[in-house]
Amino acid sequence: MATDCELCNPVTESVLWQDAFCRVTLVDDSDYPGYCRVILERHVSEMTDLSAPERARLMDAVFAAEAVLREVLAPDKINLASLGNVVAHLHWHVIPRYRDDRHFPKAIWAKPSRPPSGRGAPDADRLARALKRRLGSPD
Amino acid sequence: MATDCELCNPVTESVLWQDAFCRVTLVDDSDYPGYCRVILERHVSEMTDLSAPERARLMDAVFAAEAVLREVLAPDKINLASLGNVVAHLHWHVIPRYRDDRHFPKAIWAKPSRPPSGRGAPDADRLARALKRRLGSPD
Repeated sequence: MATDCELCNPVTESVLWQDAFCRVTLVDDSDYPGYCRVILERHVSEMTDLSAPERARLMDAVFAAEAVLREVLAPDKINLASLGNVVAHLHWHVIPRYRDDRHFPKAIWAKPSRPPSGRGAPDADRLARALKRRLGSPD
Repeated sequence: MATDCELCNPVTESVLWQDAFCRVTLVDDSDYPGYCRVILERHVSEMTDLSAPERARLMDAVFAAEAVLREVLAPDKINLASLGNVVAHLHWHVIPRYRDDRHFPKAIWAKPSRPPSGRGAPDADRLARALKRRLGSPD
């Protein structure tokens, strides 16, 4: 735990699934409905700071989030990224992308290409149930 | 294989390591010396289009590239991303980041924050040898 880390000390988060190792949250981003984060509970910076089984466990949650977003939202593409330049606490961005979204085909961190598509927020309960089916009941 | 895909039909690539399943290339980007890509040989769009063992095999190469870049270049951060919005053929960006690089702490796809740092290109042979030590001899 790092006292000044916003992922160690979350204020408001919409948690879809969680166990003692990691959590999956739904990001409140009107440009990117369904945008999820998979956040390691421990304060660790890089994937290669984890053991191989820990890396596999975290990626299992990332790929479960990808699978659920594809199943529920049928986006045109999924983007996965672990950056952590601002908050060096391992977290994965799992982002459903659409051809008419604000930045497509650019990364969501680029300058926008067009106005928001106005696509609505997904049903968080449905995403949470689908994650539970894939990842099991939280601890 | 897709006839119009630039990752199925690469023109110039600096390949650091390759087997029948994937290859690791060194990207020619003067802003990001050491920037590597891990490219699946098959033309597949999403990680969840692969089987679990295939996903693990591809991530092993991604994490080997991360480990080698940390070992050889000691960057301030590693960024990992699988986007594929332009070329929907699975490939991972493995990017060594430095506090004085063009975009830090933003993603490299954002508007630059400062001029290039002028950091020089890494020794490709050294990266290739380090990858071979971690991933074994190519097929």
